[in-house]
Amino acid sequence: MKGQTIYFRREPRIVAVSSIAGKKECEGVVGRYVETPLTDDMFGESTYEKAECKMLSHVIDGVMENARIGRDEVDFIVSGDLLNQIISASFAARDFSVPFLGVYGACSTMAESLAVSAVLVDGGYAERVVAATGSHFASAERQYRFPLELGTTRPPQSQWTVTGAGASLVCARGEGIRLLSATVGKVVDYGITDVNNMGAAMAPAAADTILAHFRATEKDPAYYDLIVTGDLGALGSRIVKDLTWEKGLDISANHVDCGEIIYNVVEDEFQGGSGAGCSAVVLNSYLHAKMMTGEIKRILFVATGALLSAVSSGQGESIPCIAHAVAMER
Amino acid sequence: MKGQTIYFRREPRIVAVSSIAGKKECEGVVGRYVETPLTDDMFGESTYEKAECKMLSHVIDGVMENARIGRDEVDFIVSGDLLNQIISASFAARDFSVPFLGVYGACSTMAESLAVSAVLVDGGYAERVVAATGSHFASAERQYRFPLELGTTRPPQSQWTVTGAGASLVCARGEGIRLLSATVGKVVDYGITDVNNMGAAMAPAAADTILAHFRATEKDPAYYDLIVTGDLGALGSRIVKDLTWEKGLDISANHVDCGEIIYNVVEDEFQGGSGAGCSAVVLNSYLHAKMMTGEIKRILFVATGALLSAVSSGQGESIPCIAHAVAMER
Repeated sequence: MKGQTIYFRREPRIVAVSSIAGKKECEGVVGRYVETPLTDDMFGESTYEKAECKMLSHVIDGVMENARIGRDEVDFIVSGDLLNQIISASFAARDFSVPFLGVYGACSTMAESLAVSAVLVDGGYAERVVAATGSHFASAERQYRFPLELGTTRPPQSQWTVTGAGASLVCARGEGIRLLSATVGKVVDYGITDVNNMGAAMAPAAADTILAHFRATEKDPAYYDLIVTGDLGALGSRIVKDLTWEKGLDISANHVDCGEIIYNVVEDEFQGGSGAGCSAVVLNSYLHAKMMTGEIKRILFVATGALLSAVSSGQGESIPCIAHAVAMER
Repeated sequence: MKGQTIYFRREPRIVAVSSIAGKKECEGVVGRYVETPLTDDMFGESTYEKAECKMLSHVIDGVMENARIGRDEVDFIVSGDLLNQIISASFAARDFSVPFLGVYGACSTMAESLAVSAVLVDGGYAERVVAATGSHFASAERQYRFPLELGTTRPPQSQWTVTGAGASLVCARGEGIRLLSATVGKVVDYGITDVNNMGAAMAPAAADTILAHFRATEKDPAYYDLIVTGDLGALGSRIVKDLTWEKGLDISANHVDCGEIIYNVVEDEFQGGSGAGCSAVVLNSYLHAKMMTGEIKRILFVATGALLSAVSSGQGESIPCIAHAVAMER
C-alpha cells in the first residue's frame, strides 16, 4: 500500500503551455492571458463538437510550437474531454502521429492528465508528454442538459461551461514549473441529483482530495500560495471551504476557484464557469503566467469532475464526483 | 524521446483475475473458464446500464477476494467502459473507497488500463492496482446503433458486443503473470464510416501497434505463443494478418482474436464478439487459466478500440481507432 498521494522524485516539469478560449471567456481577468482568444466560438467549423475538437488540436499543436519541438519528439498525448466517447480528444489525437492515452475524469481531466503525464515522465517511461483537455459551452449544454435552440431558462445554481482548451507539456528536463506530487481522487457521492447544481455535487469530492493531500504531505494550507479548485463555482467554493473547515483544515485564506475567476460579469453564468476547459484554460494561461513571473510560487491544483451522464441522470442516479490534485512549484 | 514501447524493469505481475459473462458468452469454449457465468443478462437490475455497472463492480470485488486482500490494500482502480462518460466504471468505483483513474479507449480499455496499472506499479507509485473493464450487448446496441426494441436487422459484417467484464490485479510482488512491456497505440483512421464494420475499422490500428511493438523489441512473432487481438472478429482478423504481412511481418501462425473465439456458434454474431468486455473476459478467464497451467507461456495482448460516438458518426466522421499492446509471460 503506497497511498493516494504519488510523489515525484525527479520533479517532472511543465516547460510550455498553450491555451485558447471563446469570446465570453476572454472578456474576463483570465482572458488577457489566453494565447489564442477566439472571436468566433464555432472556430470556423460547422458543428460545436468539431469546434471543440479543433480547439483541443490547436492547443496540442500550440504547446509543441511554444516548446519549439516537433511532433516526433513527443512520447505521448494524454487527453480526454466531456463528450461521449471523448471524441474531441480522440479525433484531435488523430491529427498527430503520437501514442495516445485517453482518460476520462469529466472536468477533473486537466489534473488527471497532468498526473498520468507526470508519472510517465517521472518513472522514466517518457521524455515529453502533452496533457490536454477542453470543453465547449454549446456541445456540453446539448449533451448534458437541453439543446440551446430550446432557449431553456437556466436556474441560479447553474454554471456556464467554458468554451476553451489548454495543454501543458510535461518534460523530464528544462526550465518550468516543477510537479511535486499528485493526489488521485476517490469517487465521492453525496446524493445530489440536480444536474444544474454541479458545484454542490463536486465540493465533497474536492474536500476529500484536499484533506487526503494535506493528511499525506503533513503540510499546512499556508504552504501553498493558492489552493485552486477546478470549477466548483461560487456556491461550490463556499461548500468546499465549509467541508474542509469542519475537518479542521482552514483553506479559506488561499482558496480560489477557476470557475469563480474566469468570468468578469456574472450575468448568465450565475455560479461561474465549469467544464473541463475551465481549469485547463486558467492553469495554462493565467496561473502559468503568474507562476513564471514569480508572483505565485506554489499551487495545489485540484480539478474537480462530475461523473454523470444524461443516461445515469435519466435513470434516477445521483451524481458521483471526483477530484485529483497536483502540487506544483516554481 | 523514449518511444512508443514502455519496458517494465521490475516486471509487475497479474496475481489474480476475475471474470463474469452473460449466458450466450458462457456457451462458448471460453465460457467454461469464466468465474461467474450469468443466467440472467440483467443481473437482477432494472436497466442494461445498471447491469453493466454491477458486472464491473462484481469483478473488481472478485479480484480482491481472489487475491485475499481488502479494499484498503488496493492503491488504485484504473477502469473505463464504452458508455457515455464511462458511467459503468465511475459508478462501480463509487462502491469502493479506492483512488480511481478513469480511462477511455473503447474496446482497447483492458490493455490501456493494464498498461497504466503496470506503469504505476513498475514506477514504484503503487503496490496493487486493479485494471478492469466490461461491456453489455444491450447497452452498447442502443447507444451506438439502434434500441433492441426496434428489431433492426444486423448486417453480416457486424459483431456482437460481449456481455461481460474482467479485472486483473497488478502487483509489485507475488506469483503470477509477468508484464514485460506495453506499446501505446496511435490513433489510426483508414476512413471507414460503417458503424457495423468495426473489424475493418480497427484492423489498421492493430497492425500499426503490432508492427511498432516488433520494430521496437526486435523480436520475432514466433517469440510469442499467441498474438491476441481484442475484438477484430473474423473479417478484421483477416485484414490485420494481411496488413502486417504486407509490411514483412507474418503473424498468421500464432494470431488469435478474442472476438473470434468467444462465441461457439456463429449465428447472430456474424464476425464474432466485440466490446470492451470481449478481450477483458477472454484474458481474465481462458487466457489466464492457460497461462497458469503453463499451456501458454508468452502472449502479446493487443486490445483494439473504435473511438467513434453516435454524434461523430451522425456528423459524417469516419471511425478513428486505437490498439494498445501488453506483452506478458508466465
